[in-house]
Amino acid sequence: MEKIRRNERMSVMMRILTGAPGKMFTLNQFCELFGAAKSTMSEDIDALRKVVRDFDLGEVETVTGAAGGVLYRPRRSRASAGAFIGELCRRLSGTERVLPGNFLYYSDILSTPETVNRMGEIMATEFSAERPDFVLTMETKGIPVAFATANALGVPLVIARHSSKVYEGSAVNINYVSGSGNIETMSLSRRAVRENQQALIVDDFLRGGGTARGMVELMREFNVSVVGMAFVMSTLKPEKKKISGEKSLMTMDVIPGDPPEAVVRASDWLNG
Amino acid sequence: MEKIRRNERMSVMMRILTGAPGKMFTLNQFCELFGAAKSTMSEDIDALRKVVRDFDLGEVETVTGAAGGVLYRPRRSRASAGAFIGELCRRLSGTERVLPGNFLYYSDILSTPETVNRMGEIMATEFSAERPDFVLTMETKGIPVAFATANALGVPLVIARHSSKVYEGSAVNINYVSGSGNIETMSLSRRAVRENQQALIVDDFLRGGGTARGMVELMREFNVSVVGMAFVMSTLKPEKKKISGEKSLMTMDVIPGDPPEAVVRASDWLNG
Repeated sequence: MEKIRRNERMSVMMRILTGAPGKMFTLNQFCELFGAAKSTMSEDIDALRKVVRDFDLGEVETVTGAAGGVLYRPRRSRASAGAFIGELCRRLSGTERVLPGNFLYYSDILSTPETVNRMGEIMATEFSAERPDFVLTMETKGIPVAFATANALGVPLVIARHSSKVYEGSAVNINYVSGSGNIETMSLSRRAVRENQQALIVDDFLRGGGTARGMVELMREFNVSVVGMAFVMSTLKPEKKKISGEKSLMTMDVIPGDPPEAVVRASDWLNG
Repeated sequence: MEKIRRNERMSVMMRILTGAPGKMFTLNQFCELFGAAKSTMSEDIDALRKVVRDFDLGEVETVTGAAGGVLYRPRRSRASAGAFIGELCRRLSGTERVLPGNFLYYSDILSTPETVNRMGEIMATEFSAERPDFVLTMETKGIPVAFATANALGVPLVIARHSSKVYEGSAVNINYVSGSGNIETMSLSRRAVRENQQALIVDDFLRGGGTARGMVELMREFNVSVVGMAFVMSTLKPEKKKISGEKSLMTMDVIPGDPPEAVVRASDWLNG
């Protein structure tokens, strides 16, 4: 095989590292892949770390020692996150997307991979310091963004469901009061998480906070601590939610009228 | 700003292109980003195309003409796909994961981002020639792998649900016969897809094919043609499904006994 150039090694490493955020690769793995010396790989990685930082693409971290290696973490600067979310807000605001009952149609936003991945990276950036062991969401619409956040953090996704299916084995069920005031059930397989883990809750929509409150209680049943809560959208009303400490990407209000108009804004912390 | 080197330009382009599979970027965008001439960028892209092919990382395509540019498509060779799925089969086979009713526990596999992304790339590789406009799945467990497939194809994900929620606007509902023989409802928002589009169906599990059959019928209501069907796992029995032409990554059988034992194998087409 012809000798592999630095630009080739760096490009391939970029693909491998960014394709599995949070996953540690040893220097040896790359030495073998490229047939290169450790000193050469160290120089490549230094160069990669610099370029990733220069172009606001995240961070390449090196961990020294026997269990050491190199890994990638996506990080979005507040400035680029704010600009991206601001653009989304412009698309969502106005009269066209308001549905009966003053709900907002944005399922399309929640299922466009490029947009969802970006939102997941922003959420991961905010909560990676809390070291969640997994991301928890409640079916259905928040699953893609929760998955994207889990991907950016390099941790598994755990999905709570409305009812325990016979084919998932033993489960823990809890009851909670939903936004509409109904008593609902939330269920999670016993195998899904382990005691003393740390959960990051991610969901698409926050109104009163009943479902989020339910997820917190569900985690208590598993002896899991909730280290953060992130939502794509939260409503301005009710102002008082059943949870606190959460971060939403956007806030939304619907101004009555004919037709009613949605006002969607990037949350304050994104403009800080 | 100091002059940007080729290894830096190539690494950054790799990140940008592979971060948005199927999305076209113009040469001009990269010229501006790097302050480089078109001829330089063309050379960089040629080098990138070669390295991506050499390391089995997919394909970098260039499209000439006024609407032209460069884009990335993840492609997994059959050999690497077969090796990856074979390893999964070893993890899933045996007695430990068999649940009451001879179901198999593999929700953890379906929610580990690195594994799910790889499965999505394999599915996208098989069906990208059919040019699907979107990926369709039925809630819940198949959503992550359907999202990963949509991501690899660069198309939106569309999620059919068990019931139409009031807050999603007008919807089309159909009834179908589920695996357990019950009549169930499948619902999709009218806004989710457009007439004459092409759908790729992706789901986690195929037994009798009732749910998949339902998705095909749902698409008929929207005048959408189904150009492919991909599943993570299909059961050997019943041999005759309510659909045909599908591709599964793995097949599964449970051998009765005390304890019962799961036999999970990579599908034949992966070993071809």
